[in-house]
Amino acid sequence: MSPQGTPKPHAMRTARPADHVDNGFYGQDVISVRQFSREKLVYIFSVADEMRTLVRRFGSADLLSGKVLTNLFYEPSTRTASSFMAAMLRLGGRVIPINEVHYSSVSKGESLPDTVRTLECYSDVIVLRHPEVGSAQIAADYAAKPIINAGDGQGEHPTQALLDLYTVQHELGRLDGLKIAMVGDLKNGRTVHSLTRLLSLYDTEFYFVAPDILRLPADMVAEVKARGHKAVEVEDVHEVIGDVDVLYITRVQKERFTDLAVYDSVKDHYIIEPALMARARPNTVLMHPLPRVGEISYAVDQDPRAAYFRQVESGMFIRMALLAAVLGKA
Amino acid sequence: MSPQGTPKPHAMRTARPADHVDNGFYGQDVISVRQFSREKLVYIFSVADEMRTLVRRFGSADLLSGKVLTNLFYEPSTRTASSFMAAMLRLGGRVIPINEVHYSSVSKGESLPDTVRTLECYSDVIVLRHPEVGSAQIAADYAAKPIINAGDGQGEHPTQALLDLYTVQHELGRLDGLKIAMVGDLKNGRTVHSLTRLLSLYDTEFYFVAPDILRLPADMVAEVKARGHKAVEVEDVHEVIGDVDVLYITRVQKERFTDLAVYDSVKDHYIIEPALMARARPNTVLMHPLPRVGEISYAVDQDPRAAYFRQVESGMFIRMALLAAVLGKA
Amino acid sequence: MSPQGTPKPHAMRTARPADHVDNGFYGQDVISVRQFSREKLVYIFSVADEMRTLVRRFGSADLLSGKVLTNLFYEPSTRTASSFMAAMLRLGGRVIPINEVHYSSVSKGESLPDTVRTLECYSDVIVLRHPEVGSAQIAADYAAKPIINAGDGQGEHPTQALLDLYTVQHELGRLDGLKIAMVGDLKNGRTVHSLTRLLSLYDTEFYFVAPDILRLPADMVAEVKARGHKAVEVEDVHEVIGDVDVLYITRVQKERFTDLAVYDSVKDHYIIEPALMARARPNTVLMHPLPRVGEISYAVDQDPRAAYFRQVESGMFIRMALLAAVLGKA
Repeated sequence: MSPQGTPKPHAMRTARPADHVDNGFYGQDVISVRQFSREKLVYIFSVADEMRTLVRRFGSADLLSGKVLTNLFYEPSTRTASSFMAAMLRLGGRVIPINEVHYSSVSKGESLPDTVRTLECYSDVIVLRHPEVGSAQIAADYAAKPIINAGDGQGEHPTQALLDLYTVQHELGRLDGLKIAMVGDLKNGRTVHSLTRLLSLYDTEFYFVAPDILRLPADMVAEVKARGHKAVEVEDVHEVIGDVDVLYITRVQKERFTDLAVYDSVKDHYIIEPALMARARPNTVLMHPLPRVGEISYAVDQDPRAAYFRQVESGMFIRMALLAAVLGKA
Repeated sequence: MSPQGTPKPHAMRTARPADHVDNGFYGQDVISVRQFSREKLVYIFSVADEMRTLVRRFGSADLLSGKVLTNLFYEPSTRTASSFMAAMLRLGGRVIPINEVHYSSVSKGESLPDTVRTLECYSDVIVLRHPEVGSAQIAADYAAKPIINAGDGQGEHPTQALLDLYTVQHELGRLDGLKIAMVGDLKNGRTVHSLTRLLSLYDTEFYFVAPDILRLPADMVAEVKARGHKAVEVEDVHEVIGDVDVLYITRVQKERFTDLAVYDSVKDHYIIEPALMARARPNTVLMHPLPRVGEISYAVDQDPRAAYFRQVESGMFIRMALLAAVLGKA
Repeated sequence: MSPQGTPKPHAMRTARPADHVDNGFYGQDVISVRQFSREKLVYIFSVADEMRTLVRRFGSADLLSGKVLTNLFYEPSTRTASSFMAAMLRLGGRVIPINEVHYSSVSKGESLPDTVRTLECYSDVIVLRHPEVGSAQIAADYAAKPIINAGDGQGEHPTQALLDLYTVQHELGRLDGLKIAMVGDLKNGRTVHSLTRLLSLYDTEFYFVAPDILRLPADMVAEVKARGHKAVEVEDVHEVIGDVDVLYITRVQKERFTDLAVYDSVKDHYIIEPALMARARPNTVLMHPLPRVGEISYAVDQDPRAAYFRQVESGMFIRMALLAAVLGKA
């Protein structure tokens, strides 16, 4: 997607009311994990902790009472859309859900800049899911109100990476000095790429576990090593299961393989069963961005180390924190 | 649908806060009419009466303020979805509407147990409409939060039966000693089956009015008789119209007939016109679960005995009562 | 669409609570611009001004707290649906969004009268978008609760015309003594027709700028002239650009032309570029109902006279005013 027209100069942007908290996020967009320093992560995670307490004790709050979020989803994602919606509702805000963009004025040829400039007339913040890389940045260039990127194709999905990292901290109490195994399709998974970038801010040992054709792109491995991290590439999760603090599982899709014999030869190396978990450490954290389709067996769900549903819940707290932060109420 | 994995043991379920009313419904699922005794019905109907008063006087209340309902509809049902949504909103709660499950992660192969365990991270109660028999029970087995069955295929649609029964009580002031005619497709109508089960709890005389090929299943007739009820099967509504307290009409679908000559010969026996209503008692209650397609003529709408739109309104009050009850606020 | 059955007599309509403001709109439907006198427009625009102040200062209000709007869209219109939704939410009300009517009970053959009589059991006001001319009036005939027409096919879209007129007043401070150019497809544009009717209530000089095959229907031109207005028809916007107070642009769709050579010969007369705007007056107001597809270049967006996004925002204020008015809270 190429930008159209000229972005609004900042001077023309809507004046902000005075009753906000100047937290470094107020009025800002959330487009990429590259925006996040360790300091910013400490801040957002501490707000997310407050959100957790608030939801546990009271269910919801009135922090964003009177605020309106537009959930603008150009492609369906029930999971992400629901998480942002719940986050806004539990903060007392309101949501305009737009899930059918393919039917709408956009299909009549309206540009993304016009759509976001229209919707920001109605709302205080826009969450955008769009199939094209770079679309979130274009939306942010044109909108005066904050844009939160909920996934721009093969680009980024920063709130997923933030919730993943926050889950590690919540489960283990720290982010430095950890051994993390990323498992599955490391070539195509934007989730893995974004999380790897965030983990690179910490003292992390990386274990990249993938079949040969789905290895992490070489430039990302090089980038991790250049930052001074240990980075080991292996093909079988059995090789690392006993050594790591975090097992981050993603799906190995049959469709990625041109030679199905190769798929059949490797697929069992990436399925997490109770027998495999028996070889993991007592407090290894087992994570998955969900949805899963067979790569973690249901029998593992009862294992207290299975953190994937707690990860879902942490996602809501992170999104509550981000919404409150960009609206100046955190 | 067969269950996958192991349901969460009750000990692992989310701790309930202490500020709830212990009403026998708190934290419970609503899956089947078989869960309802006369005592439970008295309770829910009295709460529904309170809801009616509340909406009439104030429009809405704050009873469920801070609570979030996920309306999870795997198949479209504008009517039922809107009724639950209105019920939650009028109690001060919030709603996450999910109407497009066919587009979502579910279509990527995610199981119902995973979907409900994800959505319950965001919400306090889940209303589920799903095309497969037994799906609501499976969801309830896995979810820690209450599941309300809004229809599971040819299985049950318990809130429809509850609102039907509640309408009878609201219109006539009592449930014992009534003569009830069920009219139309009694073979396939889950609505009729569930309502018949509920009415069997009371001193009811049943008149089952259907063409031969759409009679109530023999085992249901036997069950009703075994409980000591009078149950008469006839083919023409004219035979009973003058004798009954309630006329419950359902649609006779042309598609159910293999021999259209048979359809043509019977169809007029099941269409309610003013001339027919002239033969009914002055306070017979005319009900229909809606939508109708010709089986009650529009000319009947002005008849004060036509209760079908009051039935719709009663549906909202029943759903308000159920939501308040399972969330411990009734 | 032909009416079915008999509308509810007014005596049967729901009793109105006593705590309302008798503003001439309370409990009324908004179906056509023909309902609006200058007095009514003064009233609605003054309420819209209050709404603007309210949103600027506080973001939202509790004026419609406890009220429920059903947004019933039989055809998709993200823009209009979002605007009404935002309007209701910013007044503290709740919204039941129904965007997929093609999937719903309606597709099972339910009539519009039955659908609105069902939905009004759940809600306090219904906003209806429907593809058939006259559908909004039919809905209003049957519903006891107020119906607001959000577009009935080639019929009317009165809230668009109201927001257009309100934008003119907001931008220029007056409605009398103005020269207004309507540009583009004046034959098919219901927006242009409705706005022309409203402007006819004021001392307006009309300039109708269209290619020959897309001229304003002759009867509308005659009607305008019969009311004593100057009405000039031209084919090129250059002829009038320097003389008018308002330029109201609509799209000239290629699809309307059977002879593409004609389209190619005229299309550039209807595209607004910075060079063209250089010939307009310093305070000419440039409007467009959006979405645009090329008829105003993006380079014009920075021009302070480009009012189309302010027009979008004014739309929300007008809809807030109408919702508050028909619910007796303005």
